[in-house]
Formats: sequence, structure tokens, C-alpha cells
Amino acid sequence: MTETDDLQAFLNDLDRQMHIKGDWGTPARYIPELADIDPAQFAISVALADGRVLSSGSAQKRFSIQSVSKVFTLAVALGRIGDQLWTRVGREPSGTSFDSIVLLEREQGRPRNPFINAGALVTTDAMLEGRMPQDALAELIQFLRAACEDDDIHIDKDVARSEAATAHRNTALVHYLLSHGNLHNAPELTLGTYVHQCAIAMTTQQLARAGRMLAGLPDAPRLISARRARRINALMMTCGHYDGSGDFAYRVGLPGKSGVGGGILIIAPGKASIAVWSPGLNHYGNSQVGTEAAQRLGQFTGWSVFG
Amino acid sequence: MTETDDLQAFLNDLDRQMHIKGDWGTPARYIPELADIDPAQFAISVALADGRVLSSGSAQKRFSIQSVSKVFTLAVALGRIGDQLWTRVGREPSGTSFDSIVLLEREQGRPRNPFINAGALVTTDAMLEGRMPQDALAELIQFLRAACEDDDIHIDKDVARSEAATAHRNTALVHYLLSHGNLHNAPELTLGTYVHQCAIAMTTQQLARAGRMLAGLPDAPRLISARRARRINALMMTCGHYDGSGDFAYRVGLPGKSGVGGGILIIAPGKASIAVWSPGLNHYGNSQVGTEAAQRLGQFTGWSVFG
Amino acid sequence: MTETDDLQAFLNDLDRQMHIKGDWGTPARYIPELADIDPAQFAISVALADGRVLSSGSAQKRFSIQSVSKVFTLAVALGRIGDQLWTRVGREPSGTSFDSIVLLEREQGRPRNPFINAGALVTTDAMLEGRMPQDALAELIQFLRAACEDDDIHIDKDVARSEAATAHRNTALVHYLLSHGNLHNAPELTLGTYVHQCAIAMTTQQLARAGRMLAGLPDAPRLISARRARRINALMMTCGHYDGSGDFAYRVGLPGKSGVGGGILIIAPGKASIAVWSPGLNHYGNSQVGTEAAQRLGQFTGWSVFG
Amino acid sequence: MTETDDLQAFLNDLDRQMHIKGDWGTPARYIPELADIDPAQFAISVALADGRVLSSGSAQKRFSIQSVSKVFTLAVALGRIGDQLWTRVGREPSGTSFDSIVLLEREQGRPRNPFINAGALVTTDAMLEGRMPQDALAELIQFLRAACEDDDIHIDKDVARSEAATAHRNTALVHYLLSHGNLHNAPELTLGTYVHQCAIAMTTQQLARAGRMLAGLPDAPRLISARRARRINALMMTCGHYDGSGDFAYRVGLPGKSGVGGGILIIAPGKASIAVWSPGLNHYGNSQVGTEAAQRLGQFTGWSVFG
Repeated sequence: MTETDDLQAFLNDLDRQMHIKGDWGTPARYIPELADIDPAQFAISVALADGRVLSSGSAQKRFSIQSVSKVFTLAVALGRIGDQLWTRVGREPSGTSFDSIVLLEREQGRPRNPFINAGALVTTDAMLEGRMPQDALAELIQFLRAACEDDDIHIDKDVARSEAATAHRNTALVHYLLSHGNLHNAPELTLGTYVHQCAIAMTTQQLARAGRMLAGLPDAPRLISARRARRINALMMTCGHYDGSGDFAYRVGLPGKSGVGGGILIIAPGKASIAVWSPGLNHYGNSQVGTEAAQRLGQFTGWSVFG
Repeated sequence: MTETDDLQAFLNDLDRQMHIKGDWGTPARYIPELADIDPAQFAISVALADGRVLSSGSAQKRFSIQSVSKVFTLAVALGRIGDQLWTRVGREPSGTSFDSIVLLEREQGRPRNPFINAGALVTTDAMLEGRMPQDALAELIQFLRAACEDDDIHIDKDVARSEAATAHRNTALVHYLLSHGNLHNAPELTLGTYVHQCAIAMTTQQLARAGRMLAGLPDAPRLISARRARRINALMMTCGHYDGSGDFAYRVGLPGKSGVGGGILIIAPGKASIAVWSPGLNHYGNSQVGTEAAQRLGQFTGWSVFG
Repeated sequence: MTETDDLQAFLNDLDRQMHIKGDWGTPARYIPELADIDPAQFAISVALADGRVLSSGSAQKRFSIQSVSKVFTLAVALGRIGDQLWTRVGREPSGTSFDSIVLLEREQGRPRNPFINAGALVTTDAMLEGRMPQDALAELIQFLRAACEDDDIHIDKDVARSEAATAHRNTALVHYLLSHGNLHNAPELTLGTYVHQCAIAMTTQQLARAGRMLAGLPDAPRLISARRARRINALMMTCGHYDGSGDFAYRVGLPGKSGVGGGILIIAPGKASIAVWSPGLNHYGNSQVGTEAAQRLGQFTGWSVFG
Repeated sequence: MTETDDLQAFLNDLDRQMHIKGDWGTPARYIPELADIDPAQFAISVALADGRVLSSGSAQKRFSIQSVSKVFTLAVALGRIGDQLWTRVGREPSGTSFDSIVLLEREQGRPRNPFINAGALVTTDAMLEGRMPQDALAELIQFLRAACEDDDIHIDKDVARSEAATAHRNTALVHYLLSHGNLHNAPELTLGTYVHQCAIAMTTQQLARAGRMLAGLPDAPRLISARRARRINALMMTCGHYDGSGDFAYRVGLPGKSGVGGGILIIAPGKASIAVWSPGLNHYGNSQVGTEAAQRLGQFTGWSVFG
């Protein structure tokens, strides 16, 4: 029996255990289209250095990647304007919840990092850069398709519509950024782009494959440099789970980025790219079962970057 | 020429370059005994997996490790009371400066992490645990000597006295913790222990050797479990440089803990334990040249945990 | 020579002194239409219990009353929905600047008082109450005309347009309120009403006469009850000058409400209603010369409510 | 029947009504000596311009004046160093609770006003001014005795001791002030003086008589100028009830200063000095029944300064 077989057995068992445990958390309420989802769902996919992708659970089911998209938007924005982006957004953990506007006032309109909502709005604004939303979104989708080597990735229009109709806090943030001169496109364009990128639907299998470039796996398409991948991983480690980032680093020991749709992309540099999904959230707003599964996978594989 | 010879040459060159660049930053002002130090000093030591310790600069010069001591206090406190510690202190980056009392009010007396001052005071209080300061300090020093396998480690009494005389902010923090019931010893005992542990003087050579247990190097004395080492490394990554932690992770890609004495302990899991020292600080309160040197070393060696 | 003659002489002298002193402050920059105004202007009008209105300076010149309008909007909103309003907005000084969004997050979308921007937006929203902006504005203008007994009060359309084009911070606030369910009309309607009410143009003579109902002067039209007038005065005292309210109470001893157009309405209960105008602002965002003139008038007349 | 007889009848009835209503609030818990007090107690005294003092309830019972003392400490400190005091403490409402340390950090060690704890500690420090606590306290007690024309005013040593043993938050504040250079005496001396002044015990009759100088009543001893009295009244209006100051101004319309012992001193300039006491507190930390009684007295007498 090979190592890979062991891992497949572990993943199958993990799916079973998560269902037995049944401590699913609560799906995000504020996006109507996501609120009614059945929380008792789980999927995990692991893209390995040897090119294989192992999965268990509902790994063919599409879910809304939500804030996981911020990782790819960041990659595209850095590709367009490079380190200039850091004049508009910081690289520090925020110490507050994902949609807070407090620090934005203290820091005079420069969000703390690209993964809190305010910072992601700035990153999206940088990716948009004078274009129409559909053009920027087409580039982002194309980037994701290239990263996965799979063209079957789309925006879920119903989710985008549902989110747009209730995006009052993000609308506040975008106008607040504008009042500080840190928005370069019309607010409705940046916000529209943001909402649509959050509504991208993917399977864990697709997401795990999309993360291969960050893990530096041999078979990953060369879309970003190794240096940029390292730096994005660093940001995921310190800021990827909002005010639960320190806890995730402590428990899992790998960089990751979560979304309120219940997905988490986790990177084991040189070893694997992992996508996990379960729609119920813990009190930080990160997938409850996803976090638990990531921790167990980390213990099983010993993939922690911390030794 | 071996790899080690290359690294030695790099370190020698690094020392030269840092002196040529001459952008030293400003030594900490608030501890009188440290304020008058000549900023134009540099030392680096790298303990490798093969047991060798390479150095350049003033690697035999003792400096005040200050907050770097918090790593070892944490290890000792966890050794005494284990995960119970986390009921008293969190594991999240703070988003504020090292001596802030603001978040402590918001979080009702539970400091955000063990590396900001408030959290380190709680950790020290847990290490003290009803004993007299000299007994707890003896244990800490003994732990450090065992970690270095070097008995020549001592507390600099002048620095401790100087610091004690001006520790008003820390005195405020310790009484504030007491008002929330999160201090178990008399304030002056916890504060006295804290001030003395910060005044421990070490060379970069000693500090690099002391960090071997965190890097999991083969020749490191077995003082803590691999799991605990990983978790301490995770905390160093997300919280080790105060409000510059995200930036250090982004630039260096390794967990580290800085002190206002200008020292930084940096861990490359499985590969090396690094100590760097230069007393001038950047605007985050971390060693300016030390951070720069760590970044260059990271680029040279490719030791980033992020790929 | 009567007391009134003395006061007239004092006002004439005050106008002279303010011009000699020439310490005018800086006009508000963020409303383009107001930014270019000549700061070296001054007007004061005092409506007395005997029905006379004494003035000096440019008392016939119209200026943009801006936030002074919040007093009248509050009166109209209370007239429509009564004390219900206080479920949506508080009555406490804010301890922050006028356009802060920080406390709004801490207090979960219930602004601290009706005179900071967030609170005035809620009050405007309550005045609007399902109507179209022009209907609500017509009621407000009608209320002001009745209060002055002068039909020549209008909205300055250029100022309204200028303000609407740059109201990003207020747009952020209104969407933030919406995200907390504390906005009952469409954001653009509430914001549009708000911007237009701020753009009402009046002379100090008109404004002083409009304030007679708050001072309870015998000749004031009976538009609000004595009890409501007292309570509005109380709010002006504790919250009428943003983060300079305590200072104004200390120096002047009378309730007042300032606007960034440089106007201040000041109430000496039972004695006088005072309007002062000078477009340059101090660091709190209140009229610099207006505050100084109010203090001198208070010293001359002994009208302080504090003895 | 005279007006005074009417007022006496009202006060008698008020005492009855408060006992019937029986909604007493909760005595302060954090000072052990005060925690066990029976909340079902009430006293009110009104010193009138004609020299009479009317009372009802337990007007002969001594209670701990606590923060009401801050008014008199302020008067003494201003008497010693005048307006210089305002370089060390502000005059603005704080927008936070009485013992908050948050704003102190934001404002770099200059408390917002002399009535929050941090500001009162600075005022006490200014009153102390290099003397021994007993000398400063003797001056304060002498000032109070002169103000009341009654020598039977003393410090309750048991309360002082009880408070000193649990003053951790105030100890934190005093060291925090020291760290910003805004403390001129040894921390334990300023804190000791503060704790003892808070432990002064008085009856409502004494306290009402002590306030006559602030109300400017004809028979008040001339201890402070009319101008200073006005200014202290202004501070009581905007800052006298912590984060409930706006509400007190709105409901009562008179300047007042509350203490956690359940006392409130209320000033009706030119008309009366009022002391009310009932030990149960509302959620702002001010006397629940005392506030209610003040509001009813205000309605009965029409003494509001706001018209």
C-alpha cells in the first residue's frame, strides 16, 4: 500500500467522522442565497506533488468560493500593478472582524490587509483599473481556469444578485474608501466586480488544483513567480482567517484562506494544495468543520510549515 | 567549497554590507540603560542541522534579549500548566503596538497573545505560580542554559534596575490585569520577574543555540515536544513582531521574535536557528538592520516556510 | 441710553474688533462650493425678548447654514414621530469628530446623538418617513419660514449639488446605517434630503429669528412646546459643537449648534436667540470667530445659563 | 401657603413615591464596603436662595460622596494653579465609561475631562502638588467645611481602606498617567489622596449647603469666583454623569455630578443647590432613584436652565 493510498483512506475516514460528529456550525445568514443551504455537507480535495488529486465527500459539488476569491484577485492585481498595490493596502493582521470599518478610520482609508473586506475592495479596484467589470471578471475567471486547467468555472449569477442586494456594509466601505481617495473606479463598478468575484462557484477539486501554483507543485501552470507565491502564502498565514488567523496558524500550521461560503484553500508548500468545504461557520466566520478537517489532515500528514 | 562555506562567506559579506549601508535605526529610548548604546553594531549566528554554528559580526557580545525572552517564558509556562494558559491569554495578532492597553479593555483583561506586553505579563504570572521571583527566574535561566548547553547566561542587573525604575506602562498593565482577575501573584512580584527576564543578556551564538529546540535540529536538547515547538513557531509567525508581524512574514517568510534590545530569534524549521542583533529599531520597534539581514539571509538560503 | 443701545454699541464694536484681530480660521475645504469663500467676514444678530433684533456686520448676507439645519430637522422629526426617535438615535456626546464611523460600529448602528452626521442622517430619515425628498424639504422650509416669519428662505442649489458630488463619507454612513436596519428610506433619498437641508441659505437675522422658539421669547411663533424646546437646547449644550461641545459650554455657557458653513445658532433661554457667522473654522470644525464672538457676547451680557 | 411650603410638600411626597415605586437599582459592587448597603434608601435636600434648606427622607444619614468629591477637588486645584490645569486635562465629554483607559491611550495621557477617573486623578495630583496627602486632604476637608459652614465632615476610614484594597483599575490609570509624564507626585501618594477624598462622608443636607457657592446663592460663603462657579457648572453639565451626561441634561436640564455611592449634587444657578441620595445605580453607574427624583423636582420647579 502506497502513501497515497493511506491518504485516500484517511480522507474517506475523515468524511465519515465529520458526519458522525455532526457539529456543523451555522451557514452565513447575511447572503440570502447562502442562508438556506444544508450545513451537513463536507468535501475535501488534496492536489499532490505527484499530480494526483485525492478527494472525499461532495468533491464534485460547486459552492460559492466567496472570500477565497480574494487570493486570486490579489494575484491578478499584483500581476497588473506589482508592489505599487502596497501603497494602497497594508500587510498586517487587523485584530478586528472581517467587515469592520473601525481600523479603516484609524488608518485613514488604507486597509490593513488585502483579505479583510475593505482591503479586498481596494485590490479589486486595482484589478479593475479603468476597465469595465466584465473585462476584469473575464480576466479573473480566465486566470482561475488556467490555474485549474479546467474551463468549467463560472460565476453564480443568483448568488451575485442576492449578495448585491444586501451589500450595504460593503457599499459603506467602498464610499468610505472613496472619501479617502483610495478608490480609482466608480463605486458601483468596483462593488459590482467584487460581488461577482465572490460569487464564483467551484468544486473542492477545482479549488485544490487552482492552488497548486501557490504550493509550487511541479505540475502547476506557471502563472505567478515562486517569490509572489511565497508572499501570498505569507499573507494567507497572518491574515487569511480574519480574527481567527492566529488560531488557524496555531492549530493547522499552514497558510489558508477561508470564505463565508464555507470553503478554505490551504497550502502545504512543496507538498500539496488542499481545498475543503463545509458551509457551517464557527464564531470567527470560518468553516467549522473545514477548520477541524484541516487540523486533522495536518496531524495525519505532518505538513505543518512550523516543523 | 561546501554549502556551509558559502553560508559563512555570505554572513561575512552581510556584516560588511550592513556597516556600509549604515542605516541603523534608533535604539529604544525608554530604557535608560539601553538608550546610550552605539547603534552601529551587528551580529548574526546561524545554528545548522549539522551541529555547526556559523557567525559574523559581534557574535560574542552580550546584549539584552528583552522580549525575545517571552518565547522561553512561554515554553516554561506551557511546561508548567499546559493548555490551561490559553484560558488567560489569546493567540491572535493584536493590530496595535506592543504596549497598548486599548485591546485589553475591549477584551476584558484577556490579552490577545503572549508576545505583546500584557500577554507576556500573564505568561510570566503563570510561570511564577505562587513562587518567589528568584525561584521562577532560576528555572527560566536553567531552561535557557540547558537549551544552549552553555552555563554562562545571566541577568544583567543594571538593565533590570534601569527598566524597573521606568516600567510605568507595564505597571499600569499589571494592575489592569489584576482588576480583571487575570493576575494570580502580587503585582510587584510578577512585574519584578518580568523585568528581570527581559534583562537576560546573551550573545547571538548563545541565542541561536537556544533556538535549536524550536527548529527541531537533531542536536537540540529535548526540552519541549515537537508539537509544542511547532505551536510556539506559529505564534512567533503571527505575533512575534508586534504590529510588524505581517510585514516580517511577508519579507522573511520565517517565524521570529524580536526584542527592543535589537535582538531577533528566527526559526527555519528543520534547517536552522538564527539569532541576529543590531540595537537600532525601525518604526515598528523591531531591529532595523536585524530585519534587513534576516530578509537577505532568507533570500540567500531559500529557507522560507512558504515555498 | 437704554440697555438695548448698549448692546447695539457692543455689537458694532465686536464687528470692528473681529476685523482688527483678523484671526479668521480656515473655511471648510471638503465642500468645493464653500472652499473659496473669503474668510474675513463676520455677522451677528441678536433677537431679544422685547421683539427687537440687533445686528452688526454682514447680517443681510446669506450663508449656508449646513449643520445648524440639524436643529430644525430634529424639531420637525420629533413633531412627526415624537420620542420614538430615541429608539433610533442616542442623546450622548460622541467623543469623536463629526463624521466618525467608529462609534457607529461600537454602538451597532445607533448613532450617539442627532447632531453628528450619522445621527442627523437618521433624523432626516425619520423626517422623510416614506415621502419624496421635495415634500419633506418643503415641510422643513415651511417650518423655518414660519419660525422666522419670513418667506424668503431657500435652498442654495449650487451648494447642494457641490455637496452631493462629494458626499462620500455621508454615503458610507447611510449605507452603514442601512446595514444595521436603521434606515427606512432608500439611501439616495435620505442622503439627497440631507444634502439639500444642509444647503439652506439664511442671514444671521433670519437665523436669530428662527431660534426664538427655542429661547422661548414672547413673540416667537408657537411651533414647538416649551418642553421640547428645553430638550433640544439640552442636546445643543452637550452635543452641538461635535468634539468641541465641552469647550463651548465652558467658554460660552449657552447651548449652541454650529455648521461648517461658519454659522452658529446660540440660545439664551428667556433672553435671546443669537446667530453668528464667520466662515473660517477652528480645529474642532466650528466657526473660529463665531465662537470667540459668542464668548465675548456672553461675558458682556452675563447670559450664561450656569449663573 | 408659601412657595416653600409647596416645595416641602412636594419633597415629602417624592420620598413616599420613590419608596412606593421601589425600583432602586443596584449598589456599586466593586467597593466591598459599599456593596452591602440596603438600596431601599432615599434622601433629598434643597438649599434655597432665601437661606432655607428643605429636606425629606434620610437627610441626616451620612453616605460616601465618592465622585461628587471631584467637583470640590477641582475647585481646590483650580484655586491653587488656575487655568494651568487645562494643559493636563481636557474639558470634553468622554463618550466612554468612567474608568476607561482607552481614550487615555488615544489622547496620549491627557484625560478628556476632570470627572472621569483618569482626569480626577490628574486633578488630585495637581491639588497634592508636592505636599503630603494628609495636608492636601486637610485643605479639601477645610474647604468643604467652609462651604457648608459645618465642621462635622470627615473621611470614612473604613471605606477608604476598602477602596484602597481594590483600586486596581485606578492604580493602572495612575501608572499609565505617569508613563505619559502627566503625574507629578509619587503614584501611591496621588492614589492615596484620591481614595481618601472619595471616602468623604456627608449628609444630603451638608452636600446641598456645600453646593451653594456653585449655585451662587446669596448666603454662600465666597470661596470661589462667580466665573469659576459658572465654568465648573458647565463641566458638570457636559461631563458630570459619565456616559449618561447627555441623558441627564436632557431629562433634568441642570448641571449635576454623581458618585457611585449614590449621591448627586445638582445646581440650579441662582435658585438652589440640591443634593439627592439613593445607593442603587442605573446602567450608567449613576443613582437610579436620584436621577428620577431630580427629573421630578425639575418638572415641579421648572428650574431647567434650558428655558
